[in-house]
Amino acid sequence: MTSKNKINEDLANERRKCNFNIEEVTYILDGGKEKTLQRKKIEDVALNGGASVDDIPEEYLSARERYENAIRKSCIYTNIVKNEVLEITGIENYGSPVLRRTGDAFFKDISPFMLHLGMFVPSIIGQCTAEQQATWLPRALDMKIIGAYAQTELGHGTFIRGLETTATYDPETEEFVLHSPTITSYKWWAGGLGRTANHCTVVAQLYTQGKCHGTHLFIVQIRDLETHMPLPGVKVGEIGPRMGFNTADNGFLGFNNYRIPRMNMMMKNAQVLKDGTYVKAARHGKLTYGTMVFVRVTLVGEASFNLAKAVTIAVRYSAVRRQSELRPGSIEPQILDYPTQQHKLFICIATAHAFQLTASWLWNTFTAVQAEMKKGNVDTLPELHALSSCLKALSTSDATAYIEQCRFACGGHGYMLSSNLPFLYAFVVATRTYEGDYTVLLLQTARFLVKAWEQAESGKVVTPTVAYLNRHFTTNGKMIWDNSPEGIIRVFQSVAAGKISLCVRSIRNRITSGMDHEDAWLMTTVQLVNAAEAHCRSVILHTYWNEIVRLTKHSSDNVKTVLNQLVMLYLTYWALERTGDLLRYSTISENDIDLLQRQYEELLVKIRPNAVGLVDAFDIRDEILQSTLGSYDGRVYERLMEEVQKNPLNKEPVDPSFHKYLKPLMKSKI
Amino acid sequence: MTSKNKINEDLANERRKCNFNIEEVTYILDGGKEKTLQRKKIEDVALNGGASVDDIPEEYLSARERYENAIRKSCIYTNIVKNEVLEITGIENYGSPVLRRTGDAFFKDISPFMLHLGMFVPSIIGQCTAEQQATWLPRALDMKIIGAYAQTELGHGTFIRGLETTATYDPETEEFVLHSPTITSYKWWAGGLGRTANHCTVVAQLYTQGKCHGTHLFIVQIRDLETHMPLPGVKVGEIGPRMGFNTADNGFLGFNNYRIPRMNMMMKNAQVLKDGTYVKAARHGKLTYGTMVFVRVTLVGEASFNLAKAVTIAVRYSAVRRQSELRPGSIEPQILDYPTQQHKLFICIATAHAFQLTASWLWNTFTAVQAEMKKGNVDTLPELHALSSCLKALSTSDATAYIEQCRFACGGHGYMLSSNLPFLYAFVVATRTYEGDYTVLLLQTARFLVKAWEQAESGKVVTPTVAYLNRHFTTNGKMIWDNSPEGIIRVFQSVAAGKISLCVRSIRNRITSGMDHEDAWLMTTVQLVNAAEAHCRSVILHTYWNEIVRLTKHSSDNVKTVLNQLVMLYLTYWALERTGDLLRYSTISENDIDLLQRQYEELLVKIRPNAVGLVDAFDIRDEILQSTLGSYDGRVYERLMEEVQKNPLNKEPVDPSFHKYLKPLMKSKI
Repeated sequence: MTSKNKINEDLANERRKCNFNIEEVTYILDGGKEKTLQRKKIEDVALNGGASVDDIPEEYLSARERYENAIRKSCIYTNIVKNEVLEITGIENYGSPVLRRTGDAFFKDISPFMLHLGMFVPSIIGQCTAEQQATWLPRALDMKIIGAYAQTELGHGTFIRGLETTATYDPETEEFVLHSPTITSYKWWAGGLGRTANHCTVVAQLYTQGKCHGTHLFIVQIRDLETHMPLPGVKVGEIGPRMGFNTADNGFLGFNNYRIPRMNMMMKNAQVLKDGTYVKAARHGKLTYGTMVFVRVTLVGEASFNLAKAVTIAVRYSAVRRQSELRPGSIEPQILDYPTQQHKLFICIATAHAFQLTASWLWNTFTAVQAEMKKGNVDTLPELHALSSCLKALSTSDATAYIEQCRFACGGHGYMLSSNLPFLYAFVVATRTYEGDYTVLLLQTARFLVKAWEQAESGKVVTPTVAYLNRHFTTNGKMIWDNSPEGIIRVFQSVAAGKISLCVRSIRNRITSGMDHEDAWLMTTVQLVNAAEAHCRSVILHTYWNEIVRLTKHSSDNVKTVLNQLVMLYLTYWALERTGDLLRYSTISENDIDLLQRQYEELLVKIRPNAVGLVDAFDIRDEILQSTLGSYDGRVYERLMEEVQKNPLNKEPVDPSFHKYLKPLMKSKI
Repeated sequence: MTSKNKINEDLANERRKCNFNIEEVTYILDGGKEKTLQRKKIEDVALNGGASVDDIPEEYLSARERYENAIRKSCIYTNIVKNEVLEITGIENYGSPVLRRTGDAFFKDISPFMLHLGMFVPSIIGQCTAEQQATWLPRALDMKIIGAYAQTELGHGTFIRGLETTATYDPETEEFVLHSPTITSYKWWAGGLGRTANHCTVVAQLYTQGKCHGTHLFIVQIRDLETHMPLPGVKVGEIGPRMGFNTADNGFLGFNNYRIPRMNMMMKNAQVLKDGTYVKAARHGKLTYGTMVFVRVTLVGEASFNLAKAVTIAVRYSAVRRQSELRPGSIEPQILDYPTQQHKLFICIATAHAFQLTASWLWNTFTAVQAEMKKGNVDTLPELHALSSCLKALSTSDATAYIEQCRFACGGHGYMLSSNLPFLYAFVVATRTYEGDYTVLLLQTARFLVKAWEQAESGKVVTPTVAYLNRHFTTNGKMIWDNSPEGIIRVFQSVAAGKISLCVRSIRNRITSGMDHEDAWLMTTVQLVNAAEAHCRSVILHTYWNEIVRLTKHSSDNVKTVLNQLVMLYLTYWALERTGDLLRYSTISENDIDLLQRQYEELLVKIRPNAVGLVDAFDIRDEILQSTLGSYDGRVYERLMEEVQKNPLNKEPVDPSFHKYLKPLMKSKI
């Protein structure tokens, strides 16, 4: 073994200590052995050739070089996927998380093609007629055209109805005239739009026969396919540097009376006939929830996966890093031996499990609801919508906080881009905002909860995830505290029910004292966000526990034990975080809280020897992890030093600015 | 008025609504009218010439260009300060926050000279003999030499005793031999070291006459003053890109048996004589706390100021931004009208006040303690040390979270670098780690608290900030809840006392059950961090309230009212955040909590009309704010569009990569 292949001795020791079968846990997280094997095969095909690796790390490049590098690799990756990977997965898995995962090895930041595949193609599939699909889809899938998805404008994000871009139908020429009437109406943010896309799905207010019919989608060519020049009437460019997503060339787009053929309106759900008559399809409405829910489920998975990366990095680093002495003269312990460090990290492992299993469960629920919808039953759609909203909100928000916690746990070195932790943070923190801001989504969930509460109040049986509301009306007083997982979950449901009740009471009191419903709701929104959070927390606790019980039924004893320790850690952690709520809505005593605290500290001790094994079980290849601190071999300091050699700035010992500025200052009389 | 000077109509309206005298509040925050006037004069001198403004925003430049620009502006700024600003302030205010504040206009990120002035010069003043000072100080102040401060190594940060760099005395040549024996012994992180500094304070293990005397400080020349080439035996360069501080050229430094004269050891507190005899000065020890405490007090001020910037940006943007409709067909409200938005932002205004006033108070306390120390009384030093530790920890941690909360409140646009919010986050989040990590500092405070608890238990009177511990042993049962500011503060002190008690009990129980003291302490550290946080929270609540009462004694009624509303908001907010603790350690009832919630919601309504006035009162010039979203005139969308024009990438409509990669892909058969 050369020194390059040597595993850090501390990490090797950790792996010897691990008492459970790592692969078994990987299979559970991946959703079964077959899925793991397929994933590994894909990763081998895509990564073993080494095309994902940069000679010079992306962060040393200028904005232009970075973009060029991203385009170069996007093209390589597209070819690998088309020619090799889809052989393995089948075309139907084009957008699957496994591919997304492999893509992370190619892009430290993001691919400029991401929204072509993630939004442009799906908008064609979801919003075009069969005839339109035949025109656009093959070309888009073959990368003959490259698209973006432009909805958000400079002045409007969340409130779609406020969008200002207009598409006015002209029956004379059978064209739509796209126009940006104000500066705030410029499209803003669309990924891939700034420099990559030559087509774009544009959301605009549809005017025909003098009447506005609200927002509709249009396919718009924006650049010449041969020269890539913006077409006349189109103003397009980059919006400027961002906290992350810097290789995504997020763009702006303005139209000056720009004409497109009538058939470029996406006509699956509504049409404008040649003469300008507006015809709405019967199926419009709730079905468009579908894509939204799909994207949100995906983001729960992203939250889990990126948190898994962060905690893999932080746990391995904590096994390698040594600091201080516990007793005078003793050797410096691994920082993973400090309970405060375990406290920061083990909850992250548990949370990654919780979100991964919740995402899979949500996915299955979604599939079931879609099957129901095809039969015409849309009863469970509001629940699914509420669920996907709050789970997206909480998972992205928690993952954001915990990724940063992992970074803190790596001290100063976590601040270096080569740790990859700042990239992970910048990436995930954006998902907290886009596709539905945290606060907005929780308020949507709150609307559902208040409705469900009213139904339960009137004695109706409500849907499964809020069934605890029925219980709320049939039991008196505080929930009996009980230390078991089921007991803790029950208490968290009572907390949610209690908080929703308080909100309803607040709203009703305000109405009684003369406010109208809108103002009463508005004044209660701080509490409503809080109640929706409590509801969602109870759902996650419940789902995580249920899924672990279900999935470990046939596991080996040690796997059962360690996964149980993690879910118990999760339940105990949140009980301790929420003692205020527990004291208000359950009979928990001071002594019970003490017991929880001791139980928590003991769980840290129990999990400690398996910590490295647990992050190994996420099975994230070094190419995907992209971290000097977190690689499998633990060569932390060696890698940091190797990185220094790659820095182009270190090739020249004296910076030109010395002679230009510094020396004159040193020599001057000031 | 040209459109460039026009104030956004919504912002102008907000200013008309403001009912208090803005300048009066500015004076209070600055520490008096004279200080405000002096600050404004300095800002005029430094900024009116326009030298701080970049033609092309820093974020468009490559790493090399960015560094060169930072050096260029550092030289300009140095000249302005030396020739003009120090005329106003006097040389003794060289390192004052006012200068730091003006500097923020020149550096979006940071000046490569920062640690020359912030650490190198102070180390000469603090650690050199008078004779040595005469040699080094004038040259350093005149920028004839430029220094860095190299303490942290690749393998060691917090644990100074673990540093590996050696300085071995050779009596033959009367030199010290500096050496880096391992890869982990390389100095790592020092700001200004990578490319700027030609000198450096180096912390190394001192060996003489075969014995190690622990870490000492040495002044080391590392580059030639004429050529800037690293000297033989010195290996120096940049450590690589970071989350922030990217113009600080943080560096690494290794020595290969590099020799420096004996007199380059900083000899104020210890000496090595010509023959190699080690002599320790009597005054070594506690006095070195001084610099550490000083830096921490400064960081509390930085936390406040940068949070003030963030909330200025977010509140102004929220007055300009409009979204959704509260009633069908009504106009879109300013997002500042949403209680959930007020909930995010007003606590940030209050927190900036709390930290600013606490920093001033801490500064005065520090000065008083220094005066006592000069008389030989070091009794209050442990309290000051504990205080500065926990206040540094909490203020940087809270400011980090709230700056991010301000960014979230700006939706997608807050993610753009031109908002400046990502820079502010990256800057302040680093202060949470350096100069004492959050967890490490709170555990230091916890040691002090446990000692104080034991003293109080044995009936001794303890120092002022922990006087509540004496009360703890003389009262029985839970603290009576009382809704007044004093009542809330009392309860928070009881919470701290209760938590410290639980920790002491845990430690004692563990010792009783057979653990040694070190293990018992270690196992309790999760709780100890929590207790130290509770203590610090009570100190901030207490100080903020006291200072507002004191400072508004002669204020006009409306200023008194609005500053009181803010401090009440702060107290109420934290009471609601900590209901669990309040229920455990006070007699607060469900009804009291309800009242607090209503009181909180009413405070949001009361503060709302003065919100823009309150951030105007921070009086942060546009040049310092550096934000497209937060400028005084509120031309948010116009500025975002203007920024797009500055983007060099938008000058060329077609990126070269199109012909190189994209077109071949589009034309290929895949």
